[in-house]
Amino acid sequence: MAAIVDARGNILGRDSIKTNAYTNAEAYADALCECVTRLMKSTAVEGRVNGVGIGAPNANFHTGTIENAVNVPWAKGKKVALAAIIKERIGLSCLLSNDANAAAMGEMMYGAARGIKDFIVITLGTGVGSGIVSNGQLVCGHDGMAGELGHVIVEKNGRLCGCGRKGCLETYTSATGVMRTATELLAADQRPSLLREITGRPLTSKDVFDAAQKGDALAIEIFNYTGRILGEALANFVAFSSPEKIILFGGLAGAGDFLLKPIQAAMDENMLFVYKGKTQLCRSQLSEADSALLGASALGWEVK
Amino acid sequence: MAAIVDARGNILGRDSIKTNAYTNAEAYADALCECVTRLMKSTAVEGRVNGVGIGAPNANFHTGTIENAVNVPWAKGKKVALAAIIKERIGLSCLLSNDANAAAMGEMMYGAARGIKDFIVITLGTGVGSGIVSNGQLVCGHDGMAGELGHVIVEKNGRLCGCGRKGCLETYTSATGVMRTATELLAADQRPSLLREITGRPLTSKDVFDAAQKGDALAIEIFNYTGRILGEALANFVAFSSPEKIILFGGLAGAGDFLLKPIQAAMDENMLFVYKGKTQLCRSQLSEADSALLGASALGWEVK
Repeated sequence: MAAIVDARGNILGRDSIKTNAYTNAEAYADALCECVTRLMKSTAVEGRVNGVGIGAPNANFHTGTIENAVNVPWAKGKKVALAAIIKERIGLSCLLSNDANAAAMGEMMYGAARGIKDFIVITLGTGVGSGIVSNGQLVCGHDGMAGELGHVIVEKNGRLCGCGRKGCLETYTSATGVMRTATELLAADQRPSLLREITGRPLTSKDVFDAAQKGDALAIEIFNYTGRILGEALANFVAFSSPEKIILFGGLAGAGDFLLKPIQAAMDENMLFVYKGKTQLCRSQLSEADSALLGASALGWEVK
Repeated sequence: MAAIVDARGNILGRDSIKTNAYTNAEAYADALCECVTRLMKSTAVEGRVNGVGIGAPNANFHTGTIENAVNVPWAKGKKVALAAIIKERIGLSCLLSNDANAAAMGEMMYGAARGIKDFIVITLGTGVGSGIVSNGQLVCGHDGMAGELGHVIVEKNGRLCGCGRKGCLETYTSATGVMRTATELLAADQRPSLLREITGRPLTSKDVFDAAQKGDALAIEIFNYTGRILGEALANFVAFSSPEKIILFGGLAGAGDFLLKPIQAAMDENMLFVYKGKTQLCRSQLSEADSALLGASALGWEVK
């Protein structure tokens, strides 16, 4: 997906190319630049574009490269200098970042973090990602790869994570983690539950939400468990950067109070006294459908 | 303690007043300003001083105030605007920070973090403190109180901490924490140990170090246990800000390889793959005796 976005977050035009349809980086870059050029023409913004922002997996903010993105055919096992290629071909400076960092920039530019200099965005999707902003700047680290809070170990010898280690936050608080909790609880707990009626296909976190809305005690307990683990982790994160807000982003945040209430309770309970009651927990204000585009575009506004 | 320090960390002159001898902030400020003025005269630097830096408990970097420092008679239950008072009385701008943040600035200005923009200083003293620098800036948080990594909870329902919660990092990896570990291990383990010969006074972490140097297995195990817990925590901290270096500061860091080796082993074992082998663990390069002065003085060089 690509879009032309103004400084207020209005999408003036959009288009898309199929990232995974290309096997080499040159061919992908050709298609991407062609797409951006076409979009600038159709929206009549040529000469007025501040920069290009790209949200991508394994993107290095410092170097503008994509480094060994295993799910992207043209970037697997390679370092692709995408920012440099775009600068060369269409003459616009470009910033790259991972999706969670882009989401954080999006919140600061157009969303729940407008006017705020210290906040953390937690993305709750298939995995758990994070974008940390301190004093108005993205926390990128010396290698451009900072902010992997989904891989903070919250449970020693806990659930096996896709990263090969055990007990990472995302094994509990991602959509996938919620499903693992559901499976565990359904097996360990004999209470009746609407979730037991779903057979023949894998459960989803949407099923748990639907059941919770109908008052299903087990579904509510799944969110309570998830929220408690996330809230305890967030209380620890606050001791790091003392954010004014923690913004929850992504599908699971849609569970609303079923998730937010236990998170808040666990935060309150576990927060160091100097931070108590100071950090606001809230949901993203970016539209779910456009959040990836808005996040990436916010990087474009950061280009100096 | 107060000192005049040049940009290379040479101490040109030093003096001291007794912080706790004053019961009201006005009297303390009078004495402090008088001391600084005297020092500037005796070292002949008047008119060439960039600014004043102060390391103090419960210091707020943003506001220049000391907020309810319970161990300081003139700041207990009060907010003292020390930076403003100094600006008014001697015409120099002033930055305040807690000791750990000051230590971080000291390392960046004169020590192990020269030329480095992303690092974390962990102070291992009676408690555990931290100073986090991201992209060359101190991570202060929205309220100026960020960086309390000693109070990250590393063990659910773990040891009771002075903060009132359980399982904080500092209950395990401070000098006090080492003594708690020693007491627990000596009770639980029947092996002979040099530490059993120390009676009639409380054990100290120095005793454990001395015993370890003589090859005492139990003393070595105390450091292994301490190092493992700290290394696991540091691996989590790396996922936050991806620092180029983690610098250990304070008395316990003097245990050297007895502590550093198990820390490094636990970091290696617990680090997310994208960070593996990238973050260097090292000891402070500031002289122990002058570190507090150098740290505070580095804040003076940050004054714009």
